Amino acid sequence: MSNNTEEQITQNVLNSMAQAPNPRLKKVMNSLISHLHDFIREVELTQEEWALGVQFLTRTGEMCDEKRQEFILLSDITGVTMLVDAINHRLTDGATESTIFGPFYREGAQELPMGATISKDGRGEPVVVTGQVLSTDGTPIPGALLDVWETDENGLYEQQDPEQPDMNLRGKFRTDSEGRYSFVGIKPVSYAIPDDGPVGQLLRALGRHPFRPAHIHLLISADGFVPVTTHLFVKGDPYLDSDAVFGTKNSLVVDFIQHDAEEEAAHYNVTVPFYKVEYDFILNPAGK
Amino acid sequence: MSNNTEEQITQNVLNSMAQAPNPRLKKVMNSLISHLHDFIREVELTQEEWALGVQFLTRTGEMCDEKRQEFILLSDITGVTMLVDAINHRLTDGATESTIFGPFYREGAQELPMGATISKDGRGEPVVVTGQVLSTDGTPIPGALLDVWETDENGLYEQQDPEQPDMNLRGKFRTDSEGRYSFVGIKPVSYAIPDDGPVGQLLRALGRHPFRPAHIHLLISADGFVPVTTHLFVKGDPYLDSDAVFGTKNSLVVDFIQHDAEEEAAHYNVTVPFYKVEYDFILNPAGK
Repeated sequence: MSNNTEEQITQNVLNSMAQAPNPRLKKVMNSLISHLHDFIREVELTQEEWALGVQFLTRTGEMCDEKRQEFILLSDITGVTMLVDAINHRLTDGATESTIFGPFYREGAQELPMGATISKDGRGEPVVVTGQVLSTDGTPIPGALLDVWETDENGLYEQQDPEQPDMNLRGKFRTDSEGRYSFVGIKPVSYAIPDDGPVGQLLRALGRHPFRPAHIHLLISADGFVPVTTHLFVKGDPYLDSDAVFGTKNSLVVDFIQHDAEEEAAHYNVTVPFYKVEYDFILNPAGK
Repeated sequence: MSNNTEEQITQNVLNSMAQAPNPRLKKVMNSLISHLHDFIREVELTQEEWALGVQFLTRTGEMCDEKRQEFILLSDITGVTMLVDAINHRLTDGATESTIFGPFYREGAQELPMGATISKDGRGEPVVVTGQVLSTDGTPIPGALLDVWETDENGLYEQQDPEQPDMNLRGKFRTDSEGRYSFVGIKPVSYAIPDDGPVGQLLRALGRHPFRPAHIHLLISADGFVPVTTHLFVKGDPYLDSDAVFGTKNSLVVDFIQHDAEEEAAHYNVTVPFYKVEYDFILNPAGK
């Protein structure tokens, strides 16, 4: 006979899962139930607050469709997405830090020659991004693939914006025999995550804003190495210390240095003023 | 500049809510975030598991409509509903223990005379339920209201079953000048909670069944007293130690004693065999 009092109920719930056939599921659910019950006890959650919680989750579910994943957004703004990312990408030997993948990646970007631009509409201020892809031991990695994406100067990714050409501001680049890469993008801008749903309401209730600091996304991979999903953030961005999804890391913030010399611009096939970023990406050998 | 490493991200999320205008929301969210992050760290949640969790919540949301509340069901089978109930109904002075309200209550049941039956279809085995409603000091409470509901012998509440008369097996009863009540119901049966959705899949994955032990629901109120939402469970029910929603409490399990005497049956206006339950409900004075 189970007596489900305040004192005994948590153990009763754990006991009910004792026969779970999958040991990992059992372990995860045991931990989840224990922490969830601890939270409820710690704040002495009222029944009205419980009902608000149920309503919030229900409305979050209603907001989801093929184009909108409000539960991922909820995971993002509570730091859950980034914490899971961090736990699953612990660093060794100074490899480049990872950050949030985000919902705006698209497969199938075109592979472009060294130094080409990913802008198809010519909007925004050009930025030349160059550097090397190296192994943690310092060896250059030839043939590494950089898959790059960013918003246009209006803060929208191309699939959010019918005005932009298909696959605008997306491209793939390969390193040369010395591990060097170079591409031209545009200086990224800060933008708001979708905040017209329950997650936006929660942010406002918490006194928080929905903005992300400006960044360029990169997914870098090479045979024999652990791939890394990362960003380059713009030093000086006003949202670096309050990224709505907690994606910032010190090591990923870089100087976007302005250049005004016409002959230098001509060398990179861009107009003045343009910006230049130099950054080396460090990959861990696989199977270590 | 926020460096959202594994070590620092939780504090960064807490800091982001420092300006929340509602202090209670801030306290609840601080505790929720802390425990949620502790859970993720404890099990070192993988990104595949995180994605499964997002999918599970999304499918739970898809299952919700006007007739089905899958998030409440999820709260029920994780013991959350009962824990919140217990915290909000701490007992004093031997008052009757509360249990889960459930989703099957309907407003507007008819008030019936002392000793009347709530069955409109004559199915099931009759049970006579009698006793007193008393204050914690032992004083009888006249005019207390008992709002009673239960399933039919097929384990379905009337709104789940088009074959049953409207408002079948629901009724309200008032105590007399000595605080006495009496009504006739049917011997309740064990039944499965709705298990054709994500919550049912989770139960199966955890090696759990979806059954609740047989019970009669009662909501008891009286002017000047704290109302109580409770059940009477049937002693001997095979699911008493494994209620899918953790609603059982020792003090609410009662003997349903079988009676076969025709003249006794005639006294209660029932047929033989019938069952009899005697139970006194104890209410706390309000504002204590």
